[in-house]
Amino acid sequence: MSGKARSHGIIFRPHFKTHQSIEVGHWFYEEGVRQITVSSVNMARFFADAGWKDITLAFPVNVRELAGISQLTAKIRLNVLFDMAEQAKAMTETLTSETGFFIKIDTGYHRSGVHPANEESIEKILRASTGSSLTFRGFLTHAGHTYHAGSKQEILHIHEQSIQTLSELKHKYASRYQGIISSAGDTPSCSLATDFNDLDEMRPGNFVFYDLMQLQLGSCSFDQIAAAVICPVVSVYPQRNEALILGGGVHLSKESLVLPGNKKVFGLVVPFIDGKWQQPEGDDYLVSLSQEHGIFATQSLWAKKLKPGNLVAVIPVHSCLAANLLRKTNNAYSMWP
Amino acid sequence: MSGKARSHGIIFRPHFKTHQSIEVGHWFYEEGVRQITVSSVNMARFFADAGWKDITLAFPVNVRELAGISQLTAKIRLNVLFDMAEQAKAMTETLTSETGFFIKIDTGYHRSGVHPANEESIEKILRASTGSSLTFRGFLTHAGHTYHAGSKQEILHIHEQSIQTLSELKHKYASRYQGIISSAGDTPSCSLATDFNDLDEMRPGNFVFYDLMQLQLGSCSFDQIAAAVICPVVSVYPQRNEALILGGGVHLSKESLVLPGNKKVFGLVVPFIDGKWQQPEGDDYLVSLSQEHGIFATQSLWAKKLKPGNLVAVIPVHSCLAANLLRKTNNAYSMWP
Repeated sequence: MSGKARSHGIIFRPHFKTHQSIEVGHWFYEEGVRQITVSSVNMARFFADAGWKDITLAFPVNVRELAGISQLTAKIRLNVLFDMAEQAKAMTETLTSETGFFIKIDTGYHRSGVHPANEESIEKILRASTGSSLTFRGFLTHAGHTYHAGSKQEILHIHEQSIQTLSELKHKYASRYQGIISSAGDTPSCSLATDFNDLDEMRPGNFVFYDLMQLQLGSCSFDQIAAAVICPVVSVYPQRNEALILGGGVHLSKESLVLPGNKKVFGLVVPFIDGKWQQPEGDDYLVSLSQEHGIFATQSLWAKKLKPGNLVAVIPVHSCLAANLLRKTNNAYSMWP
Repeated sequence: MSGKARSHGIIFRPHFKTHQSIEVGHWFYEEGVRQITVSSVNMARFFADAGWKDITLAFPVNVRELAGISQLTAKIRLNVLFDMAEQAKAMTETLTSETGFFIKIDTGYHRSGVHPANEESIEKILRASTGSSLTFRGFLTHAGHTYHAGSKQEILHIHEQSIQTLSELKHKYASRYQGIISSAGDTPSCSLATDFNDLDEMRPGNFVFYDLMQLQLGSCSFDQIAAAVICPVVSVYPQRNEALILGGGVHLSKESLVLPGNKKVFGLVVPFIDGKWQQPEGDDYLVSLSQEHGIFATQSLWAKKLKPGNLVAVIPVHSCLAANLLRKTNNAYSMWP
């Protein structure tokens, strides 16, 4: 991903919410990465304490966390996101150090962000920040609707529309705000796209591990998946063609995926041999999860031969949530302001 | 629930996996509870260290955790679960102290347990444990299929069938194994049933907090819900009739609920005033969750007036998973063997 960004002349600012790990962060550093993205104030503090000096907090400013944000801006080069003038106004009232901001644009995901045609809101945010320590850095989006796409073509279509929208906004405001950039970067788009128009920055996160959801979307191959949860088989139920693992919602999260045929699954069980997980033997999917229990369909010959005590690897549906649940305790910080 | 068990002459052995809290455990102790249920070896150790001396580990024995189980049996009165003879056999090879065991029966949930008609498996488990430090305590089930029931009648029907099955097994084996008991106890059944046949023990857990799922099932009233997640409003999007809170899958879990009309929701947003959450103002449901973002529909007049920085309370779909995610760090233990 780093090479892809470089070859397109795009700033690579990977999202660290997927791994939340000092060690994995260091691998990025060794690759030359100096700018990162996080999704909470506590996560920003965690990585700032680990030595990262240029962080974009990709969540609209929570006006109840201004004190924490101010402490960060005094220490590192921080960019924040606004999608309402109220957030900008609140920031100017407490801010003491230079801080960059992006205007978050809703390019169709409908999670957060200003509608691109809502010029009034954009102007309000710009006005509220004028004459303060806030510097306008540009327009930013997360086209998360690629996660719901039915095909690679649909992902690329969303990607093209999304960066086109950012590009238009950038050019519209470039004369008033010199040096502003456009920033995008969901993992499906960044993985599949070969054309990035004049996009300036990409911020994918999930690609560091990928997962079953990305595999189904076509963003990655099985060999590119880099996170699995190793679980013991506890019981086998040959009459039901199912088996029980110690591995439930508290380990994998309850994120599910609907496969063709309307089959809802919570992970894919594959062999784990000599410390390495292997290619799937068949459709050995986790079909239900409760707090600690995971039930999977023993479809393959390999799965039918499993015994209590065997270890299996579970490819999670969503590696961000599984990694969050299984973070090492000594690598953790509060998820709450 | 304690009074209900008492009035029916049933042993009350609440499941502590819902709260996982020393303090909430103490409230049970003050109510006279001395016997508890947990769902992992680490959770058993956590509560044993807190002084609990009679614990049922309601998860089939994971043969990779025998060392941890042995340490517990030396310290407290522990009951374990078997649904395969291999588990019993492995236990007898390492066990040094007296340990009780239940045979887990699958009364229709199809998660774990022996099919009640599978006499061969039951006999194999009993044979494997004979002549060891293992003592047969009886038959145990978790009728978790009540969670998928469409009506109170269906819950009660599952409950009646389930405890009838346990009763028959108990009477069949009572002459060979004197003093064996039957143990059941999903929250919907325990909340709604008024007839417990000759059930000896109940082990509900979720009822300590209840949640949106139990409210929809009819197990509780809104006033009985005792857990909510307080979240700040970050942005409001009046044109979409939606708002953004800092509260996502890492706080609430991705457990969802399908409401009438096929509407998938992740929580219900209600007012939070003077440190107390209030009755719902309308259908202000969380309609999507990502890692830290929660989007809710601003349906009520109250919700439409919310501003960035306001605090709201979110009633979780599943309090067990939300409580697990938001446990105080100083009250935590590893979720992994």
